[in-house]
Amino acid sequence: MNERALRAIAECRQIATMTEEPGRITRRFLTPPTRDVHALLRARMETLGMTVQVDAAGNLRGRSNRTGKRLLLGSHVDTVPNAGAFDGVLGVTMALECADLAREMALQLAIDVIAFSEEEGVRFGVPFLGSRAVADRFDPALLSLRDEAGHTLAHAIRAFDLDPNLIPAAVLDTADTLGFVEIHIEQGPVLEAENLSVAAVTGIVGQTRLTVEFAGQANHAGTTPMHLRRDALAGAAEWISAVETHAKRTEGLVATVGKIDASPNAGNVIAGTTTLALDVRHLHDAVRLNAVNELLESANAIAARRGLAMQSTKQMDQPAVPMDEQLSAYLVEAMEAAGLPPKRMPSGAGHDAMVMAARMPTAMLFLRSPGGISHNPAETVRDVDVEAALEVMRGFLQRVAGEIR
Amino acid sequence: MNERALRAIAECRQIATMTEEPGRITRRFLTPPTRDVHALLRARMETLGMTVQVDAAGNLRGRSNRTGKRLLLGSHVDTVPNAGAFDGVLGVTMALECADLAREMALQLAIDVIAFSEEEGVRFGVPFLGSRAVADRFDPALLSLRDEAGHTLAHAIRAFDLDPNLIPAAVLDTADTLGFVEIHIEQGPVLEAENLSVAAVTGIVGQTRLTVEFAGQANHAGTTPMHLRRDALAGAAEWISAVETHAKRTEGLVATVGKIDASPNAGNVIAGTTTLALDVRHLHDAVRLNAVNELLESANAIAARRGLAMQSTKQMDQPAVPMDEQLSAYLVEAMEAAGLPPKRMPSGAGHDAMVMAARMPTAMLFLRSPGGISHNPAETVRDVDVEAALEVMRGFLQRVAGEIR
Repeated sequence: MNERALRAIAECRQIATMTEEPGRITRRFLTPPTRDVHALLRARMETLGMTVQVDAAGNLRGRSNRTGKRLLLGSHVDTVPNAGAFDGVLGVTMALECADLAREMALQLAIDVIAFSEEEGVRFGVPFLGSRAVADRFDPALLSLRDEAGHTLAHAIRAFDLDPNLIPAAVLDTADTLGFVEIHIEQGPVLEAENLSVAAVTGIVGQTRLTVEFAGQANHAGTTPMHLRRDALAGAAEWISAVETHAKRTEGLVATVGKIDASPNAGNVIAGTTTLALDVRHLHDAVRLNAVNELLESANAIAARRGLAMQSTKQMDQPAVPMDEQLSAYLVEAMEAAGLPPKRMPSGAGHDAMVMAARMPTAMLFLRSPGGISHNPAETVRDVDVEAALEVMRGFLQRVAGEIR
Repeated sequence: MNERALRAIAECRQIATMTEEPGRITRRFLTPPTRDVHALLRARMETLGMTVQVDAAGNLRGRSNRTGKRLLLGSHVDTVPNAGAFDGVLGVTMALECADLAREMALQLAIDVIAFSEEEGVRFGVPFLGSRAVADRFDPALLSLRDEAGHTLAHAIRAFDLDPNLIPAAVLDTADTLGFVEIHIEQGPVLEAENLSVAAVTGIVGQTRLTVEFAGQANHAGTTPMHLRRDALAGAAEWISAVETHAKRTEGLVATVGKIDASPNAGNVIAGTTTLALDVRHLHDAVRLNAVNELLESANAIAARRGLAMQSTKQMDQPAVPMDEQLSAYLVEAMEAAGLPPKRMPSGAGHDAMVMAARMPTAMLFLRSPGGISHNPAETVRDVDVEAALEVMRGFLQRVAGEIR
């Protein structure tokens, strides 16, 4: 077994012990265990000859002292409550192995490594605080956000001995760095279902979130015959089935009703209103927007036929973010060179790479998630997949350095 | 306009002012405003020459001093919170008018009137406390039930200056009384939809209540493709539609899913479990039981096809209660004699008549509910419907007395 793979995994397990809650992995933005994570990673970076600093957004950044093209690798070190050990962190420990690989192979490459401070959005309700600062997408109004304890984001940054006024200085110089690559667990079941170790990410899917409310007439479940009902839950059920049917016959589309609230929600009362949350995602914005339109038309038609009122409220409409074609092509070539199927797939979830892509050429490499499980203590990775991913990264770095064309 | 109809309505509006909550009609079992209701009704009963007592279950009972066949008429005087003025009470004020009618017509009939103390089940969570005592269906264990304030039913009875030990003495002597008739608002939309004033009730429908749980796998709404999902809410939605379809094509069946709870109930998470409450009612037990079986088979088939687990828990399985054929036939004959269509319909809700029917021949007369609205301050009745109902009762009493054959 490859020692690098074992070390990258072992470091994730060690970092998992640095937590706000004994017995559970919980590490929100700049909470005290973040200092322990930084100390461990800083030591590793310094051993690799990097100059290390923490920027004003709390990102730990190791800058390579090597010459050649400069590439940034990394991911985030915050977690959700009761998390697993690999979401984010694995992308940082593997970035360190990649930097060491580049040194070992004497590539004309300077590999910088970043451990983003925040991606999950748990503490302040807004995600990507770390990568926003690096990608020049940090709105200073965010500094007024408050956490559950009532502390502002600005306060949290100062409490970590940093100066929020210096956040503009955290922006990455794109003249200096050619691109960003994030290694991350898939957090889904696709690679496992296809028995694959890794995939190059084609892009982060666009996402529409909206609520739909059907309103009819609450009535007695015993005294109201079927033909005199205006049952909001029956209408909602018909639409949930329409959503599923539409998504199943549209390649690459996911559409989910995961939240439902009926009122008065009593077993012997016909529902007067039912509110649903719809989440639609696709790699191509046109497909997603077309699906949303068709589904809203379907909701209208169902409501009209049943004598219900229907109204919808859009809550999010976020375009897809494609990954860089050249960097992604290098990943796929390296997969083939390593004897792996050239799997490409979209990311159904957001990642720091989505924010970084607005600033610079960006690519992502996914590793299989056993059981598709993430945001859960049972989250894990397989040694062989980490080994395969490092082999892909070896070929990728050679191609970026121009040694393989 | 018939003075009796106007008086019966006016008395309901007056009794509506006797409430626990100023500005709303709320009169739970033996709460203080019940004393005011009894005082008003007692005076009316005494004017009609009745001997009046309150039995140990809190029922106000007026016994006629006339000779001839003895018939009991009445309904309940408790209400739900924020009730209307007519649910129950109208059946008592109309019973008084019927007693007066019988006297006026010098029929060989003794009309007793009862104002049941409890039908709604609000204060102690169990309905029909008054009629249970009269019909010999009162389990002494009920006396240990507690209300929200922590008082037992026995305590509530004593606080009304009654002795719970005397409840067995409240049982009606069936050798003495030939039957019970309850006049009640429909509390549903059927008579209004058919533009009818009144209907004879064929029976109280049987009712099955059960919960059904579908269990799949909670997963990320973005990263889990449609074909790898086990979506408990999508399965539940398919079944809700199946329930509705089955009920619509079965004459007289009502089947309702009014309560739904999905978990984790988040917009971006595929539902892992979804729990539904099913309520099925029909006048014929075989039809109802067959429907329940078919719907559970349907739930099983949906779950199997989708890789979900399904389990159901039966919570109520109550047989239908037919009304007495002879008494009901008299009602229908009287409707025709009054120039009204001979409408018969089942009651989809429970009533004191359901409990009384276990003890003696029982019939019910429904009055149209404008808008189908009940258990709501907007609940009302039309003068012309009360007038029509009194005309039907006139013919009914003549037939019971043997004056019309």
